[in-house]
Amino acid sequence: MAISPTLAINNLTKERLTKGLPTFKLGFGQSPFPVPEILRKELQDHAHVKDYLHSQGLLELREKISVYYHRRFGIESIARNIIVGPGSKELLFLTQLILNRELILPKPSWVSYAPQANLLNNATHWLNTSEDNNWNLSAEELDSFLASQSGTSKHLIILNYPNNPTGKSYKEEELIRISEVARKYDLVIISDEIYGEFDFKARHISIAKYYPEGTIVCSGLSKWCGAGGWRLGYMIFPDSMNEELQALISAASECYSCASAPIQYASIKAFENGPEIQRYTEVCRKILIKAHETVINTIDKSMINVFPADGGFYVFLNFKPEYFPFDSSKELCERLLNDTGVALLPGSSFGCKDDFLSARLAFVDIPEIDFDQILSDPKLLDQEGNAFFNSLKNAIFSINNWSLINLPNK
Amino acid sequence: MAISPTLAINNLTKERLTKGLPTFKLGFGQSPFPVPEILRKELQDHAHVKDYLHSQGLLELREKISVYYHRRFGIESIARNIIVGPGSKELLFLTQLILNRELILPKPSWVSYAPQANLLNNATHWLNTSEDNNWNLSAEELDSFLASQSGTSKHLIILNYPNNPTGKSYKEEELIRISEVARKYDLVIISDEIYGEFDFKARHISIAKYYPEGTIVCSGLSKWCGAGGWRLGYMIFPDSMNEELQALISAASECYSCASAPIQYASIKAFENGPEIQRYTEVCRKILIKAHETVINTIDKSMINVFPADGGFYVFLNFKPEYFPFDSSKELCERLLNDTGVALLPGSSFGCKDDFLSARLAFVDIPEIDFDQILSDPKLLDQEGNAFFNSLKNAIFSINNWSLINLPNK
Repeated sequence: MAISPTLAINNLTKERLTKGLPTFKLGFGQSPFPVPEILRKELQDHAHVKDYLHSQGLLELREKISVYYHRRFGIESIARNIIVGPGSKELLFLTQLILNRELILPKPSWVSYAPQANLLNNATHWLNTSEDNNWNLSAEELDSFLASQSGTSKHLIILNYPNNPTGKSYKEEELIRISEVARKYDLVIISDEIYGEFDFKARHISIAKYYPEGTIVCSGLSKWCGAGGWRLGYMIFPDSMNEELQALISAASECYSCASAPIQYASIKAFENGPEIQRYTEVCRKILIKAHETVINTIDKSMINVFPADGGFYVFLNFKPEYFPFDSSKELCERLLNDTGVALLPGSSFGCKDDFLSARLAFVDIPEIDFDQILSDPKLLDQEGNAFFNSLKNAIFSINNWSLINLPNK
Repeated sequence: MAISPTLAINNLTKERLTKGLPTFKLGFGQSPFPVPEILRKELQDHAHVKDYLHSQGLLELREKISVYYHRRFGIESIARNIIVGPGSKELLFLTQLILNRELILPKPSWVSYAPQANLLNNATHWLNTSEDNNWNLSAEELDSFLASQSGTSKHLIILNYPNNPTGKSYKEEELIRISEVARKYDLVIISDEIYGEFDFKARHISIAKYYPEGTIVCSGLSKWCGAGGWRLGYMIFPDSMNEELQALISAASECYSCASAPIQYASIKAFENGPEIQRYTEVCRKILIKAHETVINTIDKSMINVFPADGGFYVFLNFKPEYFPFDSSKELCERLLNDTGVALLPGSSFGCKDDFLSARLAFVDIPEIDFDQILSDPKLLDQEGNAFFNSLKNAIFSINNWSLINLPNK
């Protein structure tokens, strides 16, 4: 078993940087923004906190999450049904462990869901998606897969939207139709909404609205509050899945005790979601929209299919096979990194067929952004000729130039 | 599956406290000491740190751990062979997952090792110990068990010393003899030394000294630096087990990403082990020795067998069956908690036979201790008639009185 591809590409990229080689870090999906000042201050104020906390997480924090999630996404929940853990990744892993169901994933899906199932000897079923359906799973595809399976109630699906790697979200009517299929087969859905705050239109909709009885919502601070290294995630369980939640809390108590206590206390302010956090979120969103536009407008679409995102940190690319003489997306990405220093993550890392020359481009390497400056004056982003996205543009130019070099008739 | 017994007793105890009922918290093994000031300061200074770190842990931190562990315990290691995780519990769990070996545990052992194996569907074999051997595993017992097993190289043993729940450590000659047996059968040893700094004579010896090729050392900040809620643990692998370490790092990258980044940076100073930390450690150790003495000197030995500890937070008790009319240690502890408010953890939680009326007494509930005061003048501890351990004494008196009530002939 290899190291997680996202972390592996980060390590390779760091190696190039230490060697002084030109490098464009479009492989790793880390927020480019600082942790909000109010949260940093709270962490300082709670540096003395030393007690083990309950494995379910601090009650006050869970209460704030409940109120926040209702206010932001219209979904009701109670603190009793929420668990806080050291990152949503850990919660996803232990939930897969305790549910012990076969995993269904749309192609493409985030890099760690399937390896987690694999570590637990749970089967993974990859379902096809298509460009016509925005690389989203269709209700029909799900229905026909579940109809083909003997017995019911033995599957779990993880849906992630805004998606990693495609940046796509589901439309309301798509969520409704998937819900109907899920209900028909008693399917458990984990709805990974870690990029929910960064829906470009700020209109993220959770499938929990249409399938509350079978949906576990999963999210955290890593993307929204630029706090990937802090390790703070949460899950909201349906009331009807209390037995599963209790099993998860038990497993948590045996496997990690609790999320770091000072981090839990510091995170309360995020979910209080006061004006400072709201303003922070809006400014982050605006920068992401501009970065996304920069990619879409700069990339050479004659040779690369580009699928605009609905939110998040990523754009999904498909290098047209008639122009790129590679056998696999992995080979393409390795050559691109070697030749130009641009790091992308190959589609095969997300479950795509090897010979589908797709890649995920993370547009969050934007070193010219002085976040505090833009926070105090977001209009700077709209100024003609600003240099905020020059590195990103240069990285895309490198991809464009490299594409020309690879023309088979050259 | 129930919640971890140590956390469960903590929850029950908290319930009593919120109801205003008299309560002596001798059930939960949390350090009573504050996190050292120098570490709290470092956490404040690193509150802004937000990046995901490498799943193996920060290189500088691993380098300091290597130097620290050599200086303190005479064992050589290199940073490359060390992994840092969000608590040693998580590392123990994932190591059990990747080693996929049958688990051997001496009776009694810490509460979470066996449930972890159980979650992973790994078999657990409990080996007997005896009062004559200080409740430590004998090399003979281990040898005869391994001789009875078909095939070799399929077992893992976790040894924990100073021990939870007994407080006992292994003598050098015991470690040597166990090493010889381990080598004979190619056994993997995880040496859980989380209480190593609190060996009362400051002479903790690691079995890695005698069986370096097969010993994984496991420890962390939770006990030593009063930082249970921080979640910072580490493991030192032998160079010969690099393949297993790489598998563990992979699993870590898929299951938790990294230990909280601000916590990792803040922990560096602990392992630099400068004069402040050394002084802190000495004062903690001195307080623990005094608390332990208080228990040993106060408890009524006519009805309860008391086995003095060599280090750590606990004393192991055996309520003499001729005086206590209970069917199980669990029943005894529940009755004791109900009748007196004294929380102990029953021996059955640690793998002991139900009808062996044993219990773990944690002597770290010492509310009269003003740590900073004692840190500046440790001689206060030696003052005649000091009140530092009055609550602890009262709790023991309660046990003594309750013992008289339970005499069967009453």
